[in-house]
Amino acid sequence: MSSISIIGLGGMGRAIGARAVEGGHAVEVVGRDAAKARNLAAALGGGATAGTFGTVPAGGIVILAVPNASAVPVVSQYADALAGKVIIDITNPMRADASGLTTPDGTSAAQEIAKAAPASAHVVKAFNTVFGHVLATPGRPLDVLFAGDDARAKANVSAFIESLGLRPLDAGGLEMAHWLEGTGLLMVNLARHGVGDFNFSLGVSNLG
Amino acid sequence: MSSISIIGLGGMGRAIGARAVEGGHAVEVVGRDAAKARNLAAALGGGATAGTFGTVPAGGIVILAVPNASAVPVVSQYADALAGKVIIDITNPMRADASGLTTPDGTSAAQEIAKAAPASAHVVKAFNTVFGHVLATPGRPLDVLFAGDDARAKANVSAFIESLGLRPLDAGGLEMAHWLEGTGLLMVNLARHGVGDFNFSLGVSNLG
Repeated sequence: MSSISIIGLGGMGRAIGARAVEGGHAVEVVGRDAAKARNLAAALGGGATAGTFGTVPAGGIVILAVPNASAVPVVSQYADALAGKVIIDITNPMRADASGLTTPDGTSAAQEIAKAAPASAHVVKAFNTVFGHVLATPGRPLDVLFAGDDARAKANVSAFIESLGLRPLDAGGLEMAHWLEGTGLLMVNLARHGVGDFNFSLGVSNLG
Repeated sequence: MSSISIIGLGGMGRAIGARAVEGGHAVEVVGRDAAKARNLAAALGGGATAGTFGTVPAGGIVILAVPNASAVPVVSQYADALAGKVIIDITNPMRADASGLTTPDGTSAAQEIAKAAPASAHVVKAFNTVFGHVLATPGRPLDVLFAGDDARAKANVSAFIESLGLRPLDAGGLEMAHWLEGTGLLMVNLARHGVGDFNFSLGVSNLG
């Protein structure tokens, strides 16, 4: 059991929170709207609590589940309150028409978040290649691709993903976050052209 | 049944050629080494023929199965011999250490090939997210992601993929080739970190 904090009260935060409660973790949810955070904590059950936005999160793992445009500002606002934390960036920095990413070339949302975070924090990209409503549906075997630079932080995140009933797949260093974000973009375009709806997961099949 | 030409005599060309023969297509293989092309045609069987490098290919669909670094030079050398063809670019423009792509940002191997090809040709990116040895193993259900701008060319390629016993998944316009190429890169990094070997396929699972 780990202690985890989820900053962000949207569908993705809720989906991860529900799986984390089910996995036996101590879950804290945090948002600017304290009443909404309390409601989400109550809805999650399992002893989930509501934290105070901008203060040191209770969890060693902090899931940044805010819209991409808010991610760097939120991390900047938290500043040293995130010292020593493992920060999971789940965001998809995508243009509204899904024609491309909003991040400049040669970087990624995860890398920009890492720059904004305290030096003692470790950012791991994960969960951005899973649609929120797919994650919210229980009992499905899903692959969760992740990337990061710190081996210990990655081992923590990998164990956390596994504890949610999901399969962690390490894609390498944080420079691969750019391509994970591209995969998120690709998935939306596949949903629009190739697969026909958003009710699918992306993953790998081991052969042989 | 279609008539298809495969330029390139490596593992990927051979794997696609074998499936195309099995699918009942008229297959032409082409390489700079004419003897090697004849040997491959004989090995493929099913009436496969060897074409002459640099001349008008027999197939309406031309699969460019050369190493990425050779792709633009080969297309430039063919020049008007590719007029009106549907060109399938299967290449992965990857740095040798798989740390990134060799293409500049904002473009892709497929888009560079399209620039080098006659205006009447249509380039479709496909097959680059399938490992050659995986494609070469018969009987496996594989997803083949593809992208392109011309609807008719894409419909041809989609039908061709399906005729090989594979599932075509349309990822959108040719600008998505950049992200398909990034997915090829991601797969190599997953093979090195997350999946443990190269014996896997990437695809989507339809849910619900």
